[in-house]
Amino acid sequence: MNQRASKRYRATVAYDGTEFSGWQVQPGQRTVQQVLEETLHSLAGQDVRINCSGRTDTGVHARGQVVHFDLATRIPVNRLKLALNGRLPPDVRIMTLQTTAADFDARFSATGKEYRYFIWNEPILRPEARRYHYHVKHRLDVKAMSATARRLEGRHDFAAFCANPGYEREGTVRRLYKLRVTRRGSVVVISAQGEGFLYKMVRSLAGFLVRVGSGELDPADTGAILKSRERTARVPTAPGQGLFLWQVHYGKRRARRVRVSPRA
Amino acid sequence: MNQRASKRYRATVAYDGTEFSGWQVQPGQRTVQQVLEETLHSLAGQDVRINCSGRTDTGVHARGQVVHFDLATRIPVNRLKLALNGRLPPDVRIMTLQTTAADFDARFSATGKEYRYFIWNEPILRPEARRYHYHVKHRLDVKAMSATARRLEGRHDFAAFCANPGYEREGTVRRLYKLRVTRRGSVVVISAQGEGFLYKMVRSLAGFLVRVGSGELDPADTGAILKSRERTARVPTAPGQGLFLWQVHYGKRRARRVRVSPRA
Repeated sequence: MNQRASKRYRATVAYDGTEFSGWQVQPGQRTVQQVLEETLHSLAGQDVRINCSGRTDTGVHARGQVVHFDLATRIPVNRLKLALNGRLPPDVRIMTLQTTAADFDARFSATGKEYRYFIWNEPILRPEARRYHYHVKHRLDVKAMSATARRLEGRHDFAAFCANPGYEREGTVRRLYKLRVTRRGSVVVISAQGEGFLYKMVRSLAGFLVRVGSGELDPADTGAILKSRERTARVPTAPGQGLFLWQVHYGKRRARRVRVSPRA
Repeated sequence: MNQRASKRYRATVAYDGTEFSGWQVQPGQRTVQQVLEETLHSLAGQDVRINCSGRTDTGVHARGQVVHFDLATRIPVNRLKLALNGRLPPDVRIMTLQTTAADFDARFSATGKEYRYFIWNEPILRPEARRYHYHVKHRLDVKAMSATARRLEGRHDFAAFCANPGYEREGTVRRLYKLRVTRRGSVVVISAQGEGFLYKMVRSLAGFLVRVGSGELDPADTGAILKSRERTARVPTAPGQGLFLWQVHYGKRRARRVRVSPRA
């Protein structure tokens, strides 16, 4: 029996999703959760369950995924971070690690998230960009995309931008704080900040905005598509390799959502 | 027999060197030259020899490698570029393609080259940077590296910065136009521009500058190391994945080097 008291840890995790079948453990698949849990097990000799702020799909990357886990160890936290990074494969890294309050929950304590979607917008895709961008050859109209993005900001029923509206247990209304489109040289970046996102919502927003930027959809239809609350072929899902879970927010906005901690 | 006249083509080629055993065809190895020649063969039905400005080693990348080849085809040049990129694997791309003078030679017509060497200078290597940077965890003294780099500019015998001085048929004296070190956030970039480079010279300069930036070598020793004309353990070869052949220069400076074209 383990005599040491277990502590709760909070970590920021970055990964290259290219060679992962997403976050969640699945038999016979290489997933980020599995790699992290196995690495912790090999180091601490304990079965540790790692909980993330939200799962990512196959091929999706993370710059700032946040996780929590409980562990009983005498290894100091900085040593633990070094040791984990020393054992992890190079496509996963613990960027920060700290001990935290026992009621901190990577998912339920989160008050918002930012995703960024990267589009390589040139006729030819540079080899070193291929794993981290969606390639759109024709020139996108970023002005039209930006104007359309602004119309999507705010609190809406995003069922038309969700892959599986029927499976959303908390309904399909979400608040999108910011949806911004900018061009930086060859790259068009879509930044989406919100209190929460539906399944494949950011990739659906990106797919929709690319169609607008390609002149295939009229920005004026945005309101009607939102109102329809129906997912149709008008809204395609942009590919996973362009998407990064950029950061997860805690605190501040939390006050707005009064919630009893499940562990309190 | 082919009735069409053969034309000379000039192309700029970008590649991700990670999964290549360098440029040059070698039995049983995947090389950039082999992939390009096989793709041209599959498209044009001809054995075409592709000549580059200078070979790159295993793991080294190119943003602007220049090549020439002779081909008899009725396919217009823009169609040919599209068709090649459609058949090439995603880690090689033809960025530009044009027909050129019959005496243009990717190697012998070049008047200069720029290489860039990328160092990820943070304690933790971000997963998406791992294929394109050398990871140096401790903070590098870029000021000391810069000052040292300036001392190496100009015409010198670079034998001490060459992997195999004995094999250099044209001797070991080269003119380094510019050697600059800059920091951009987490990344330290070394840019080397010169009329020509010895075998592994840029990686040797990078390895040397990293030792200076780490406080392991005194910048004041630079002159003595150059003068020694001996390759010793003081100058390590930095790893290939940080190096990009950035661009090859033609024209202008050519006038300085009076040379009879081998094909004139």
